[in-house]
Amino acid sequence: MTTIRVNRQWLLARRPVGSVRPDDFEYHEGQIPSPGAGDVLVRSLYFGYDASQRIWLTEDGGYMPSIQIGEPMRSMGIGQVVESGNPDYAAGDLVEGFMSWQDYVIMRTDGPMPLRKLPKADYPLSWNLGVFGVGGLTAYFGVSDGLRIKPGDTVVVSAATGATGSLAGGIAKALGAGKVIGIAGGPEKCRWIKEKAGYDEAIDYLNDDLAERLRELCPDGVNAYFDNVGGDMLDTLLLHMAPRGRVLICGAMSSGYTDVKLQGPSNYMRICTHMLTVQGILLFFYRDRLEEGAAQMARWISEGKLHVEENVFEGFEKAPELLPTVFGGKNPGKLLLKVADPS
Amino acid sequence: MTTIRVNRQWLLARRPVGSVRPDDFEYHEGQIPSPGAGDVLVRSLYFGYDASQRIWLTEDGGYMPSIQIGEPMRSMGIGQVVESGNPDYAAGDLVEGFMSWQDYVIMRTDGPMPLRKLPKADYPLSWNLGVFGVGGLTAYFGVSDGLRIKPGDTVVVSAATGATGSLAGGIAKALGAGKVIGIAGGPEKCRWIKEKAGYDEAIDYLNDDLAERLRELCPDGVNAYFDNVGGDMLDTLLLHMAPRGRVLICGAMSSGYTDVKLQGPSNYMRICTHMLTVQGILLFFYRDRLEEGAAQMARWISEGKLHVEENVFEGFEKAPELLPTVFGGKNPGKLLLKVADPS
Repeated sequence: MTTIRVNRQWLLARRPVGSVRPDDFEYHEGQIPSPGAGDVLVRSLYFGYDASQRIWLTEDGGYMPSIQIGEPMRSMGIGQVVESGNPDYAAGDLVEGFMSWQDYVIMRTDGPMPLRKLPKADYPLSWNLGVFGVGGLTAYFGVSDGLRIKPGDTVVVSAATGATGSLAGGIAKALGAGKVIGIAGGPEKCRWIKEKAGYDEAIDYLNDDLAERLRELCPDGVNAYFDNVGGDMLDTLLLHMAPRGRVLICGAMSSGYTDVKLQGPSNYMRICTHMLTVQGILLFFYRDRLEEGAAQMARWISEGKLHVEENVFEGFEKAPELLPTVFGGKNPGKLLLKVADPS
Repeated sequence: MTTIRVNRQWLLARRPVGSVRPDDFEYHEGQIPSPGAGDVLVRSLYFGYDASQRIWLTEDGGYMPSIQIGEPMRSMGIGQVVESGNPDYAAGDLVEGFMSWQDYVIMRTDGPMPLRKLPKADYPLSWNLGVFGVGGLTAYFGVSDGLRIKPGDTVVVSAATGATGSLAGGIAKALGAGKVIGIAGGPEKCRWIKEKAGYDEAIDYLNDDLAERLRELCPDGVNAYFDNVGGDMLDTLLLHMAPRGRVLICGAMSSGYTDVKLQGPSNYMRICTHMLTVQGILLFFYRDRLEEGAAQMARWISEGKLHVEENVFEGFEKAPELLPTVFGGKNPGKLLLKVADPS
């Protein structure tokens, strides 16, 4: 006798062209699958939102397999093990990893980024998707390892209210940066990054002249630039880097991550004439050091050096409508959807 | 009583638009100046040709002051001190540094890249502009410091017959690279880089499908790419870099270094997804290590690990007509003009 429970799902209905839209997904009610040997059945509790989800929706998929029409939308998530065919996981365990927009999901526990068992902790469960998840740890390794901050450095971070950018400034300060400047859209966000996220200065890219403000705030040039945006912003920053400056390529939000050819930085010969180092970051490459990163972030949080901001919505039905807001939502911090409480 | 001797000069007549042309310069006969305190008067012996001379001809000038209309064209050169107002230099000394297209030139001996006194040596004087000059030392520091070759690395070098590229492959081999692949235009140049310049493989970008050849020759991706070309070639290479690969930005020959906006690499997000490191090289930043570099290159030459190729013309009158051939001349190696013998 099997109790038939419903497994709510949001499936990809069509491949988005340009910006992703809520109606690119369709609601479906499926059955709850049973885990095979080695697998675990997980109930979804939180879905995290990342701009890279838009990349997974392209034909190419970027660094992950492309999501196919009819498949549930992939996302990072937090869940709870319901049934386990793997001795390393037990029913009740809280886990984090690549999930998808459905109530119940079968997870493989091998692969390069396996399901992570969450430690018992005195911080909110959702932090495992934010400050201790991809966005937060990308900020940590991007700033510490990619930008190699030196004491006194002038550091600029774009998309400074985002899940990554809202932490990158504080991390740079904690590592000894002199002046940390965030770029954000609108006076409200600019106020927020200075008041809450540890930035010394803010540039409002919607209302300020970026080049003029950079000249004003960084008379000796920018030593380290954490780029989440690409496009014209990256091009302008390249013209303001100090000799031997470092640029971290973390994202290209300005592109919207569609299938359209990216705008390459036409001022890239500054890399040559100013002997810049441009480094990429993909957390996958730090998979053996994730705990080290989380531990350091936890220390900084407890010391009051890092501010954690979340932007949490509730209700499975909201999954598709939140996705477009990753590209320019109103609220700072990590965007999350809570779909259930742990049992 | 002063003997009036003629100082032949090639002056910039008009700022080139697009490709530089011989008639962008005009012939002039001036007087020979007298050195002030601290200065030396140098007689020109060799002029070196570099693609970066085209950059100095733009309004902006790039990393050097722009050459103004009516000024003699700047070039790297070898000369002999005729008269010295500086105790560190004596008449007869052979020197190398930033000179210009005239028989006699007053050189300041301070500044960030001062006139370099040439050691007595058993190699040709002209090598001081080639393998021991900007092109050669840029290849040395670009490969050793910028690309950080590891044993077994698969290395690709573009413009592999050029002053820098013709040495970069041999340097990578000497540092332990596994397979060294040069990109050059036409079967003759491709044969040359394999027979003379130490390359294991050659890709003829005029006749081969670059992407197909890269897949064939580098099944596990390219670990290190020495980019002299930019444009579509850089974009294609970015798609074939191995994870954690290194790219050295040395030049963008494909642009012709005109005032036109450069084509930025639209595949640059590979820097992020493959955690590439992109590093620039400008020899200026290695000014304290030039002798170290030259000494290592000399060792490799004496061990038969590096092949030195020069493409020497003679006669002051040829100075302007050779400049356009920097962008696609027929002969490999360092392009030089000999204008006089040392006394």
